[in-house]
Amino acid sequence: MNVNMNFLQELLSNIERRTRERFRSTGGDSGDKKASLSQLASSCETLMQRGGEASQILIAQQALKRYRGLDDADRLAFFEMLAEHYAADSDDIHKAYRDWSEREDNATLQKLFAACEPRRQHLLRRLNLCPGGTYELVAMRADLLRYLKTNPELAPLDDDFAHLFASWFNRGFLMLESIGWNTPAAVLEKIIRYEAVHAIQDWSDLRRRLDPGDRRCYAFFHPATGDEPLIFVEVALCKGIPDNIQTILAGGEEVAPGEADTAAFYSISNCQSGLKGISFGNFLIKQVVQELKRDLPGLVNFVTLSPVPGFAGWVDSQRKEGELAEDDEVCTALDRGSWLNDKAERQRLAPELRGLAAHYLLEARNARGQPLDPVARFHLGNGASLHRINWPGDTSEKGCQQAHGLMVNYLYEIDRIEQNHEAFSREGTVVCASDIRRQAKTGRKRLVSRDNA
Amino acid sequence: MNVNMNFLQELLSNIERRTRERFRSTGGDSGDKKASLSQLASSCETLMQRGGEASQILIAQQALKRYRGLDDADRLAFFEMLAEHYAADSDDIHKAYRDWSEREDNATLQKLFAACEPRRQHLLRRLNLCPGGTYELVAMRADLLRYLKTNPELAPLDDDFAHLFASWFNRGFLMLESIGWNTPAAVLEKIIRYEAVHAIQDWSDLRRRLDPGDRRCYAFFHPATGDEPLIFVEVALCKGIPDNIQTILAGGEEVAPGEADTAAFYSISNCQSGLKGISFGNFLIKQVVQELKRDLPGLVNFVTLSPVPGFAGWVDSQRKEGELAEDDEVCTALDRGSWLNDKAERQRLAPELRGLAAHYLLEARNARGQPLDPVARFHLGNGASLHRINWPGDTSEKGCQQAHGLMVNYLYEIDRIEQNHEAFSREGTVVCASDIRRQAKTGRKRLVSRDNA
Amino acid sequence: MNVNMNFLQELLSNIERRTRERFRSTGGDSGDKKASLSQLASSCETLMQRGGEASQILIAQQALKRYRGLDDADRLAFFEMLAEHYAADSDDIHKAYRDWSEREDNATLQKLFAACEPRRQHLLRRLNLCPGGTYELVAMRADLLRYLKTNPELAPLDDDFAHLFASWFNRGFLMLESIGWNTPAAVLEKIIRYEAVHAIQDWSDLRRRLDPGDRRCYAFFHPATGDEPLIFVEVALCKGIPDNIQTILAGGEEVAPGEADTAAFYSISNCQSGLKGISFGNFLIKQVVQELKRDLPGLVNFVTLSPVPGFAGWVDSQRKEGELAEDDEVCTALDRGSWLNDKAERQRLAPELRGLAAHYLLEARNARGQPLDPVARFHLGNGASLHRINWPGDTSEKGCQQAHGLMVNYLYEIDRIEQNHEAFSREGTVVCASDIRRQAKTGRKRLVSRDNA
Amino acid sequence: MNVNMNFLQELLSNIERRTRERFRSTGGDSGDKKASLSQLASSCETLMQRGGEASQILIAQQALKRYRGLDDADRLAFFEMLAEHYAADSDDIHKAYRDWSEREDNATLQKLFAACEPRRQHLLRRLNLCPGGTYELVAMRADLLRYLKTNPELAPLDDDFAHLFASWFNRGFLMLESIGWNTPAAVLEKIIRYEAVHAIQDWSDLRRRLDPGDRRCYAFFHPATGDEPLIFVEVALCKGIPDNIQTILAGGEEVAPGEADTAAFYSISNCQSGLKGISFGNFLIKQVVQELKRDLPGLVNFVTLSPVPGFAGWVDSQRKEGELAEDDEVCTALDRGSWLNDKAERQRLAPELRGLAAHYLLEARNARGQPLDPVARFHLGNGASLHRINWPGDTSEKGCQQAHGLMVNYLYEIDRIEQNHEAFSREGTVVCASDIRRQAKTGRKRLVSRDNA
Repeated sequence: MNVNMNFLQELLSNIERRTRERFRSTGGDSGDKKASLSQLASSCETLMQRGGEASQILIAQQALKRYRGLDDADRLAFFEMLAEHYAADSDDIHKAYRDWSEREDNATLQKLFAACEPRRQHLLRRLNLCPGGTYELVAMRADLLRYLKTNPELAPLDDDFAHLFASWFNRGFLMLESIGWNTPAAVLEKIIRYEAVHAIQDWSDLRRRLDPGDRRCYAFFHPATGDEPLIFVEVALCKGIPDNIQTILAGGEEVAPGEADTAAFYSISNCQSGLKGISFGNFLIKQVVQELKRDLPGLVNFVTLSPVPGFAGWVDSQRKEGELAEDDEVCTALDRGSWLNDKAERQRLAPELRGLAAHYLLEARNARGQPLDPVARFHLGNGASLHRINWPGDTSEKGCQQAHGLMVNYLYEIDRIEQNHEAFSREGTVVCASDIRRQAKTGRKRLVSRDNA
Repeated sequence: MNVNMNFLQELLSNIERRTRERFRSTGGDSGDKKASLSQLASSCETLMQRGGEASQILIAQQALKRYRGLDDADRLAFFEMLAEHYAADSDDIHKAYRDWSEREDNATLQKLFAACEPRRQHLLRRLNLCPGGTYELVAMRADLLRYLKTNPELAPLDDDFAHLFASWFNRGFLMLESIGWNTPAAVLEKIIRYEAVHAIQDWSDLRRRLDPGDRRCYAFFHPATGDEPLIFVEVALCKGIPDNIQTILAGGEEVAPGEADTAAFYSISNCQSGLKGISFGNFLIKQVVQELKRDLPGLVNFVTLSPVPGFAGWVDSQRKEGELAEDDEVCTALDRGSWLNDKAERQRLAPELRGLAAHYLLEARNARGQPLDPVARFHLGNGASLHRINWPGDTSEKGCQQAHGLMVNYLYEIDRIEQNHEAFSREGTVVCASDIRRQAKTGRKRLVSRDNA
Repeated sequence: MNVNMNFLQELLSNIERRTRERFRSTGGDSGDKKASLSQLASSCETLMQRGGEASQILIAQQALKRYRGLDDADRLAFFEMLAEHYAADSDDIHKAYRDWSEREDNATLQKLFAACEPRRQHLLRRLNLCPGGTYELVAMRADLLRYLKTNPELAPLDDDFAHLFASWFNRGFLMLESIGWNTPAAVLEKIIRYEAVHAIQDWSDLRRRLDPGDRRCYAFFHPATGDEPLIFVEVALCKGIPDNIQTILAGGEEVAPGEADTAAFYSISNCQSGLKGISFGNFLIKQVVQELKRDLPGLVNFVTLSPVPGFAGWVDSQRKEGELAEDDEVCTALDRGSWLNDKAERQRLAPELRGLAAHYLLEARNARGQPLDPVARFHLGNGASLHRINWPGDTSEKGCQQAHGLMVNYLYEIDRIEQNHEAFSREGTVVCASDIRRQAKTGRKRLVSRDNA
Repeated sequence: MNVNMNFLQELLSNIERRTRERFRSTGGDSGDKKASLSQLASSCETLMQRGGEASQILIAQQALKRYRGLDDADRLAFFEMLAEHYAADSDDIHKAYRDWSEREDNATLQKLFAACEPRRQHLLRRLNLCPGGTYELVAMRADLLRYLKTNPELAPLDDDFAHLFASWFNRGFLMLESIGWNTPAAVLEKIIRYEAVHAIQDWSDLRRRLDPGDRRCYAFFHPATGDEPLIFVEVALCKGIPDNIQTILAGGEEVAPGEADTAAFYSISNCQSGLKGISFGNFLIKQVVQELKRDLPGLVNFVTLSPVPGFAGWVDSQRKEGELAEDDEVCTALDRGSWLNDKAERQRLAPELRGLAAHYLLEARNARGQPLDPVARFHLGNGASLHRINWPGDTSEKGCQQAHGLMVNYLYEIDRIEQNHEAFSREGTVVCASDIRRQAKTGRKRLVSRDNA
């Protein structure tokens, strides 16, 4: 049962008229762009008033509709208006601070906190009143994130969104759903669209990925955003830990569920760019591990088959910086590019490349001391360990470009997750198989300044 | 699909042990009360750390369980601990204020806002991570509200709860559900328990109130609190506007839906005391009006049949203050109390009592200039108008005690709601039928100082 | 989505009028009883014609409504009319038989079969066309079964119903549903009403019986009869095999599901008397055993706690026939009736009574050589074995009257069901615990002519 | 909750073994074809015995699995075995006939009916016991219908299937469901596969046909066959009655639902060939008309846009028989085939072709005096009237081949359906627009022997 907005429309002309009179909005759906932005500003101002809540729903709806009607330039202007006019009242803050300074108690703290809250947050909460508002606000933040690159001064606005979204999209409100061939087509269509790691070609490809025999797919949904998935993961049930994504994507030989001993998470996609930074992936993987353990007691390995998106770039940078010699065997082989079709070349190259990758994953760090590779950061931060380096693991164009065909398995072991996580987050330790540590040593030798780790 | 907590339990001993070591918790389920509170404190402290999110869910669950295990004294002590230790860091605030004072821009405001946010809010958000956490926190606030009466210094804590609940229970997240005889018994049982206006005697009484022929019931639910209703309203479909609650509760003559022209809202109950101040009633009534209009186009009147809970108290106070003479005809009649069984007496008394009630509803105000009667405040604040005073309208013991048998109809007219609301909220005007204004004049004559309005 | 009958009503007057003209029905809703029956007859006649199917739905609906409007006398008259006028055409049968006799092939057999089919069956299928028709026909047969006692000549009609119902209520169409406190109240109300073994006192009693901690309840439903349960079973999860029904009904000590090793089926109720002879109980018990095994792997015993409804009657008959001496110790004790409150008496009586009961259950047979006791017949026929005789097992008034307080456990052992069933159905063997066979010997000694078995 | 077959498997070896012993089945999963058929025969024989019902489910399942394992030759052999060995017992029939002849009462009739029922029907009912059995039997009949063409002696077997299916797929058991983009993909995939009139190209094409703006789709389902649609209809909401199928299939201009005055049924597909002769289409159309009327009160026309599949064949036959002269203007134009791309030609040809088609639809009859065109027979038999002949209405290859591009609108008028149906079924009258009657006169003139109607 949704809010029947028809009735509320009856309230509209009345409110609109009076709002306009009060705020002397130039109003009118004249099609004039300035007018549109000004109309939105007027809606927002009205919404900030203490008013009848029924009208608030309506005005929120109207404001969101007006926002949708704006082009990028006006949307940016709208955010700038929020930055300028929907901050907080300086006098209120000064006064609240003085009061708090005198007593430093909870009562004055509360008032100071209230005085410091950007008015934007109140506005966003009011916009969220109308049905469908949450999804619109997520889309609005997706816009903001795009503008942020060229307008870094809007970052505090983004913090306002993030602050509210963290509350609204609290883990406790999310619903895990199994996605299958019995899922409504409207949802499946979004799965096709949102798949970000290994593109889904068409409905047949999707169908194979949802084969109940040896595949699983799970997604998180939020009650306020209905059938919009927030994040989803695709799982292949295998015998043994898989080392090649093309085999999985091609369907491979089907394994009877009873025989499968491994659940391979081969694709995790965030669906809503507007929810950046609101982390779901961690919860999703762990909850899916539990679902699978319960349904298929024969599973003993829970691993990913993950890309290494930063590897090729890192190799390039090492070459530019002279860490990798131009005539390094690996570099020349990669330049030559014949390994794809030359088995002997592959056999020769494999241990070298794995070594280099092991070094990259274990030792290459960003400014904050975390692994350079974003996928590694994510899984290691979740408490997984680095299990195996597979080469060639992904010979698609994308796989070759970003990682020279490398793929990696991260292992989720229930009784180690917590300590892995702590070792990683406290001391930056990358927990990994002993093989990989050995391979890394090989890899390091390749570098000119070998003590860089 | 719910989080399977079994698996997470495997993480427990590990985390617990290390947490204890780190914080030197006295620990141990010794049954010692101090130990319990201290354990809870330890859980909270752990939860505030940046930690693996899977363990956060578990620790949140553990903390909430420990809270449930406390008695009132310890729960109060827990809140006092929150007040003392989970406020904000003074140095951070001073520093953030200095930075902001210099630049007064959004970036420094954001930091100041973050510095002022009581750490409690962060704690509550983390507690909310675990399945069922939202309901537990609502129950926790219900406790806090009880303690508040004797511990007013905890009011700022309550603001923290209220601040978060306003976000979590945003109108956009609520789901309206029709309640009927096909509703699960587990929900119906709660309806019986939570009915706060006209108690439901038993399942037969409930069944009559859900008769699809001429009754309706609607409730708001929230996805995170499952089958716990937040608020519900009971509706009788009638021919003409009803003036007596006993007739409705007894079942009365059934009206075929096609013949009904009036939907009478005769009972609205808030279900969760922990959600005090998070207003749902306004939205509920208006959305139900729309549902009913759509389903039953023959309905033209949408009214309440409401109690006047402050009337008898007000009469008493007027007598004490000498505004109503001790020998006033109405007063002596009410003292005599024979009207219940004496028709002639009732006919004599009716216009006098209605007059007094009209005066009470229109003129008696609280310190903030609003109507003294809380039910009047609610409906008039929603944009309803005062439509009719019914006497005797409720001859139950409760009805006689609180309002000498009076009941009132408030009228919800779609195209007047907004202006009624504005007239009321801006100028305090009580919009009412002209009859009632006349009756109020009669009523006022009864008072000694007649210019008190 | 149900058939919207409003539209079809528009067709009614038209069809009615023409039908009446064609069949010269006296017609008219005169309220005259004969007229009503005649109207029903007219509806049926119209329905037998080849006609537009939309009108068939309508006419079927009308006919069923007319049937409901009849009193018992007219309903009986209606069945007599069916017996007389809705049999088959003799000439057609004679002719079809002659044709078949000549060739005895499938084609002529088919025609003979068609010629022999009572026209009633065609009528019943047509009546079943309208929404809700199936339930109405089940109710119609319930009437017929009542009349059958005094009108045995209607038995062939009952065969027609039974023949069709066996098809319509095929096992493959039934849906097993778990009944719990989350089941719609409308269904739970029927569970209360239909409980036939141990009456449910009120909603609190029901709630206890649905306690998810240690109780289960399952029912079969049919898509065409919606939320009408066909049969349901109540299960108590226990430690050890229970021997007393009062303990279970009182709630007893609750057993944590993980600790329960026994599922006790303590009440099985058929809900629709009109479905007599269409057996569901067998399927229900076995499917529930599977559900329970899957959900609660700790369960090892699947038993009933069953009444012995024929025992007291059999004792009486044995006394009348002189098989049990008037001064038999057991008889005099039962006559005295003091055992209920006399522990010593109970201890003395117990082995004697168990012996007599064992003899009754093993040896007392009906004309077809099956056990005399109907409950024994049912469970033994399903492949259960007689596991234990409990005394006193049911000290309720009903329990004392029908079985002098005796109850019995029948045991469902998956890997013995089939051979038990065969032994029982082929040779009449009652598979039982060795104890019981010994007890039966004791019991037999009590009888005057001891070689009666 | 479905029957958990795992448990039943435990019963299998036991039963199998004993069954084999008893019937001396050659048995063994030797892969030998004869053995397979013999195994199936053995399963069927076992199933006919009175046995434990749990084992019946299992044996039914096994028998159906064995059937699926047979090739066409063996399936045919199986049906021949049913024809030969599962007819009825001649002695029983003779005896029952003699008894009935003597008394001709209901009791002897019932026995005769039972004696004549082919044992096959009992077998089919038992096969239907297992979950999914109904669908398997529908598929089995689809096989039988294929063999029937070359083995007409199996027709009586088909009557057995038809007799049971008419009961099982009674209108009262069907569920109408709206099909949309929110329908599970597993169902939509079947819609694509089963569309029999205007093939659905791919998922995009399907999506357009399910556009909630101006399209609708409804299907009948049966509880025992789950998500297998039985029949479905596709509807376009239009302004005015559409005359061209390509416009509809291409998407055309979208009409806002509020503006649509016409629901055009442009495709009706039966999905299960095994349900041939069990008519759903009539009920479907009429129920969908009601759904649409209720949801969209602005609709005033309910029409089809239907093919005329027999037209081209009839024209050919008229030419062969000399009824249409070889040099007839229309014939030569059709031979030339230039009308598709020649507007002037089309304008010249249109009235002539419409005339010929009108004559065909009104006057061309089959041996039973019904319209020759099967689609006309269906809709006219349902009570629709012939509303308009559209040319060119379908210029697809199929449309040109079967009907030289002709399409027809049949009109469903609620208050005329019944009398149209009666006029058609009693007197063979084709109710049509007066235009069409005039066109038919034109058309008739074209024929050599003009009094053929």
